[in-house]
Amino acid sequence: MHRLLITGAAGGIGRIMRQKLASLATIVRLSDISDLGEAAPHEEIMPCDLADSQGMRDLVDGCDGILHLGGMAGEAPSSQIVGINITGCLNLYEAARAHGMPRILLASSQHAMGFYRQDEQLDATMPMRPDGLYGLSKCFSELTAQMYFDKFGQETAIVRIGSCFEAPRDRRMLATWLSYEDFAALVHRVFKVPRLGCTTVWGVSNNDARWWDNRTANFLGWQPKDNAADHRDRIEATQPMPDRTSRASIYQGGPFVEKPIVHDL
Amino acid sequence: MHRLLITGAAGGIGRIMRQKLASLATIVRLSDISDLGEAAPHEEIMPCDLADSQGMRDLVDGCDGILHLGGMAGEAPSSQIVGINITGCLNLYEAARAHGMPRILLASSQHAMGFYRQDEQLDATMPMRPDGLYGLSKCFSELTAQMYFDKFGQETAIVRIGSCFEAPRDRRMLATWLSYEDFAALVHRVFKVPRLGCTTVWGVSNNDARWWDNRTANFLGWQPKDNAADHRDRIEATQPMPDRTSRASIYQGGPFVEKPIVHDL
Amino acid sequence: MHRLLITGAAGGIGRIMRQKLASLATIVRLSDISDLGEAAPHEEIMPCDLADSQGMRDLVDGCDGILHLGGMAGEAPSSQIVGINITGCLNLYEAARAHGMPRILLASSQHAMGFYRQDEQLDATMPMRPDGLYGLSKCFSELTAQMYFDKFGQETAIVRIGSCFEAPRDRRMLATWLSYEDFAALVHRVFKVPRLGCTTVWGVSNNDARWWDNRTANFLGWQPKDNAADHRDRIEATQPMPDRTSRASIYQGGPFVEKPIVHDL
Amino acid sequence: MHRLLITGAAGGIGRIMRQKLASLATIVRLSDISDLGEAAPHEEIMPCDLADSQGMRDLVDGCDGILHLGGMAGEAPSSQIVGINITGCLNLYEAARAHGMPRILLASSQHAMGFYRQDEQLDATMPMRPDGLYGLSKCFSELTAQMYFDKFGQETAIVRIGSCFEAPRDRRMLATWLSYEDFAALVHRVFKVPRLGCTTVWGVSNNDARWWDNRTANFLGWQPKDNAADHRDRIEATQPMPDRTSRASIYQGGPFVEKPIVHDL
Amino acid sequence: MHRLLITGAAGGIGRIMRQKLASLATIVRLSDISDLGEAAPHEEIMPCDLADSQGMRDLVDGCDGILHLGGMAGEAPSSQIVGINITGCLNLYEAARAHGMPRILLASSQHAMGFYRQDEQLDATMPMRPDGLYGLSKCFSELTAQMYFDKFGQETAIVRIGSCFEAPRDRRMLATWLSYEDFAALVHRVFKVPRLGCTTVWGVSNNDARWWDNRTANFLGWQPKDNAADHRDRIEATQPMPDRTSRASIYQGGPFVEKPIVHDL
Amino acid sequence: MHRLLITGAAGGIGRIMRQKLASLATIVRLSDISDLGEAAPHEEIMPCDLADSQGMRDLVDGCDGILHLGGMAGEAPSSQIVGINITGCLNLYEAARAHGMPRILLASSQHAMGFYRQDEQLDATMPMRPDGLYGLSKCFSELTAQMYFDKFGQETAIVRIGSCFEAPRDRRMLATWLSYEDFAALVHRVFKVPRLGCTTVWGVSNNDARWWDNRTANFLGWQPKDNAADHRDRIEATQPMPDRTSRASIYQGGPFVEKPIVHDL
Repeated sequence: MHRLLITGAAGGIGRIMRQKLASLATIVRLSDISDLGEAAPHEEIMPCDLADSQGMRDLVDGCDGILHLGGMAGEAPSSQIVGINITGCLNLYEAARAHGMPRILLASSQHAMGFYRQDEQLDATMPMRPDGLYGLSKCFSELTAQMYFDKFGQETAIVRIGSCFEAPRDRRMLATWLSYEDFAALVHRVFKVPRLGCTTVWGVSNNDARWWDNRTANFLGWQPKDNAADHRDRIEATQPMPDRTSRASIYQGGPFVEKPIVHDL
Repeated sequence: MHRLLITGAAGGIGRIMRQKLASLATIVRLSDISDLGEAAPHEEIMPCDLADSQGMRDLVDGCDGILHLGGMAGEAPSSQIVGINITGCLNLYEAARAHGMPRILLASSQHAMGFYRQDEQLDATMPMRPDGLYGLSKCFSELTAQMYFDKFGQETAIVRIGSCFEAPRDRRMLATWLSYEDFAALVHRVFKVPRLGCTTVWGVSNNDARWWDNRTANFLGWQPKDNAADHRDRIEATQPMPDRTSRASIYQGGPFVEKPIVHDL
Repeated sequence: MHRLLITGAAGGIGRIMRQKLASLATIVRLSDISDLGEAAPHEEIMPCDLADSQGMRDLVDGCDGILHLGGMAGEAPSSQIVGINITGCLNLYEAARAHGMPRILLASSQHAMGFYRQDEQLDATMPMRPDGLYGLSKCFSELTAQMYFDKFGQETAIVRIGSCFEAPRDRRMLATWLSYEDFAALVHRVFKVPRLGCTTVWGVSNNDARWWDNRTANFLGWQPKDNAADHRDRIEATQPMPDRTSRASIYQGGPFVEKPIVHDL
Repeated sequence: MHRLLITGAAGGIGRIMRQKLASLATIVRLSDISDLGEAAPHEEIMPCDLADSQGMRDLVDGCDGILHLGGMAGEAPSSQIVGINITGCLNLYEAARAHGMPRILLASSQHAMGFYRQDEQLDATMPMRPDGLYGLSKCFSELTAQMYFDKFGQETAIVRIGSCFEAPRDRRMLATWLSYEDFAALVHRVFKVPRLGCTTVWGVSNNDARWWDNRTANFLGWQPKDNAADHRDRIEATQPMPDRTSRASIYQGGPFVEKPIVHDL
Repeated sequence: MHRLLITGAAGGIGRIMRQKLASLATIVRLSDISDLGEAAPHEEIMPCDLADSQGMRDLVDGCDGILHLGGMAGEAPSSQIVGINITGCLNLYEAARAHGMPRILLASSQHAMGFYRQDEQLDATMPMRPDGLYGLSKCFSELTAQMYFDKFGQETAIVRIGSCFEAPRDRRMLATWLSYEDFAALVHRVFKVPRLGCTTVWGVSNNDARWWDNRTANFLGWQPKDNAADHRDRIEATQPMPDRTSRASIYQGGPFVEKPIVHDL
Repeated sequence: MHRLLITGAAGGIGRIMRQKLASLATIVRLSDISDLGEAAPHEEIMPCDLADSQGMRDLVDGCDGILHLGGMAGEAPSSQIVGINITGCLNLYEAARAHGMPRILLASSQHAMGFYRQDEQLDATMPMRPDGLYGLSKCFSELTAQMYFDKFGQETAIVRIGSCFEAPRDRRMLATWLSYEDFAALVHRVFKVPRLGCTTVWGVSNNDARWWDNRTANFLGWQPKDNAADHRDRIEATQPMPDRTSRASIYQGGPFVEKPIVHDL
């Protein structure tokens, strides 16, 4: 790949991917509205607001692939959900359509499916059940990707990221953890397979206690290597046992299912 | 029911429902941004813009049920899709939440599923495949309804309306037609069952050639009576045979799947 | 058929079937622990306690078919559930095995599945979810039937009776009603098909609002004719609207899901 | 339609369709190796052996639609199955490909699925289980149709004919009967829908006791009107009760499952 | 956990678990009707008959978790099946309900599903098919667990134990073997997850030839480590090849499917 | 096993299996129409044309197991497909039926399913979609196997071989590769399990990117050990990226889906 665009490159996952994906393209174009620091020799820094339609077109111009991490990465008021995540998603897909439809890896979220119970096993075909406005915006993005594929042939890997951190932090992450290494390996596979289509992947490591079945994405050849169970003893020893009757314990979305809706549109 | 709100009451379906649903409530509150004419004795007219958050709260106040027909009823530029349909949907659900969560019948559309083939039989659990920005906004509305049910218990009947006209107009409507009578009967059932939950119903008459299976909504007790096949001879005699290789002939969304995306946000 | 045995013939359904099934066999043998009145010319009356193993063998001797309506027909203390329904079921199947394995129609109940929600559509293959000790005894009977079929070839029609009355009595019965005529027609089909196997049938009329799908039993050729919707206006006019948040409104078992367990073994 | 070809037009079903389909096309071309009698004014008679590759090309030339009834219509030695049914099928599809790919209605048979049990409900997606060489040749034909659709876009309606007679003749036909009227109506629908694709239809009337579910072919708009149950009393009064433990009673293929294989290739 | 109760602690599996689970609780309360030997410092010995309702209440009092291994562990006459397994199960669940509903691991058995074929792959949602009275009592226990969860919230892990021995003993156990280590690890997971619900787990090691799919129980985080294939060469060299047409070879229940029913109630 | 027959023993896979399976039987009977070289001490060489019905009977006589690799192993004109593969298959099964029904491993092919997309995950129950005449003949062979099992009890392992080579050769084989070692191990399992039935197995190694799910064949105890991903770096470095819009890139059959049909019957 000649030029890879990373949006949201100043965020928690973006900063790590910036390091790990250096080998994936000759040039890595980084974008965010926060400060991105100094560009390395193989990097280009182009700040851009997702809500700026023309700016997004310029940003995408010349790129062969896009890792779309940008947008609000958690529950937020409706003005931001609509003004940033939803508008930004439409801007991105229109920009891609205007510039040769480079392949997109769309960072979706488990919160598009947060109202399934923790004792349910999900695959990629089950109906969406978002757990708030953030989840709703991720559903919208996934469906935008599907529509641009059906209508125009735009390829996307929809990655429903679980909990992407250095290590699992609580009992729920024994199921949902995605290691940085495994995510980086997934990004590689997404941009290397001959044909991607519009494919949904659960972004989760090879955890013993995972809730999600990735069989339909086998063709990517991605096999996550890390396993949250390697951290289980530490977590079970140090983290409090949650109340099993709370909604946060019952549903996959965890604390998100209990967050309030803030509507300020 | 004491007071039923109908949004979009000046639209094609709204005008008919205004007549047919008079017996459903003591007072019918009608709203639209277009002219609604004179109020009948049992009617209240309250013009309101869906994008007006406070106006929507006032509109919903005091209502026991809502028939939500408002919004752009066909493909439209992204500014209208986001500014009216998506914003309007959030305004509606927040208004309902603020005023006792009256039951909602949400007019969704077959265009939330327009990229399935015409030789596929769909049920209510299959993944969404919108055929444009309009379809995308309907998906968003359906998922908003689901989220408000999962999170707050707000009840909604999501009705994926096929083609709601006096009679079927072309060969595709032999599958998709929904008669006015059948729709009115559905509205009655939705507001009369003891418990509704968040239920998806295909808004289609009892057409021999229907593509959609409503078994999961049986509990409503709705049995459509009309059948587009009664109009088949006329239509097959007068309507041209479409090109069977066109995308409009292949996919359920028909001409919608070929409409361009206009992005003006 | 030469001789049909009806157990529980003094019960609510038993008394009606005694009248309606006279033509099904040359001799109808009636059994119950309650008084059965005078025998008609084509009838034999043989009182028998289901818990009496030897008595049951005598009762079944010489019969070509069995309509097993006997046992506690509602929630009951565990001593009766075990002592009558469970013991009686084992006695019946052993008696049948000892006497040529006459075909059995086993009156099971919707309460074997009472903890599904009222907005769920069930078929015959879904896991059992009994709503109390009575439902549990019906599950046990169904599984006994299955085991005797798998092991010995004993044929049974397992009929999960909904609400078998002269007419539907409340809103829930708009879904669950089984008319006497439809049940009698089902009994006829069960004893007339060449091969029955071990087949589960939902005992429900052709109600618009039914929750249950009988497709897997199509081969019997039973098509119920009555429809609780014909009684809907009366019921919706006269019966109070239940609290939609009560468990009795949420689950198919209705009031049974709220009944206490009485354990006196 | 200008010219419809009927192969096997001298056979049992062919003779009836010759009468009933006169209105379907301006010219009906009839073919068989048996005598076809006099041509009516709207008819052309062209005898042809299915095994004659060039003859088949000539036969198909100029036709807009093909009703393919030709071939051995029951169990036969392997030389005939391969030499007539399999070879004939390949000849037909190559002839169609050479002449503009006119739409084909392929007469397949329930015997492609004869080893399912009579208490199983089948749909069009279940794995094939042929009950002999004849059934095997029908499977081959169905798969040829599928391959020519996938590879070249050739449209076919695969019709798995049950028992197509004036009236049902035995207890098994209470499930499998297809009336002449219903079959003729199906032929009409197949040639009138705008897009057919490669669609499997169970050729069965609206029998109470049918084993087959046609939902996936709803889009054709075919609703069979006849019901073998109207003949049930006569059949149950006059036909002997079969031995329920025989394979012919257990499996859908009936007596075919017990026929020997004759291998003379 | 403060106090874990093990019923059936003198049985084959119970004796091993007594050793392996010492670390799981501060106090392990052991119960059986057979002799349990000396109590270790961390142990309490409380003999109890499962059929003794009051005794069972006393036994459960003060326990935080229950490993229910008690009852007849193989085919038995109906008087014992009803008097011990069924009655004992009701006694246990009532005792648990009376004492704070401690979590239960219920030892069910593959014999609840013994009449599936050995070439079928099962998951936890398939209909039960018990292979005798013992299997029937296990079905009853599973459904009791489900009912107490649906009705009262009582949590249970239903473990369908395959063949729990030191090592696999015959060819069938290449599929069904559960090692002691793997079972002990499962017990740990069951009592350590924050929320259990009512979950069915196939109690089987990670055998190459296993028949059972545990995906729906992934959330427990249990990954069995042993594999019967490590014993395959020995078994295939020393164990006779069974008759492949015997029912014991065809069905998963093995020899159980051929055992007689002894009815002595 | 006393005597194993290998047909097609001079072919690409046959030559390797001849070496690897020497230990599987006392005598290995090798057959082909091509030269088979010298017989080793444990070998018998019996040239035979698959189309020779009597020759095939003689060939099978005395064998306890058959590895059927013979026939055209790629796309071919219809005369060869019918004359060799289809006729040969019937000859083989009739020969087996005449001689005690020795167990058969039938080499089928992924090309029986070639028209599924590469982003679809298949299991053994999905409808066949052959990608040409070769694929069609493999479907025919699979269904012949099924029919001989249903009708006569003949056991077969239907192995849908992916790409069986020393190592994967192109990007598509990252999904489809079957190593020689894994295939040989599968042959061993097929002939060693007590009961085989008629079972479909995907012949594919444990490749990260495999498209096929073998769960339903778990009972064989076959666990492939090789993984095409071990060759991924080499292949991705040396093999050209295919055009992602070509049918060969979209469908599982790869180049086969684009091969012409040659009809010369």
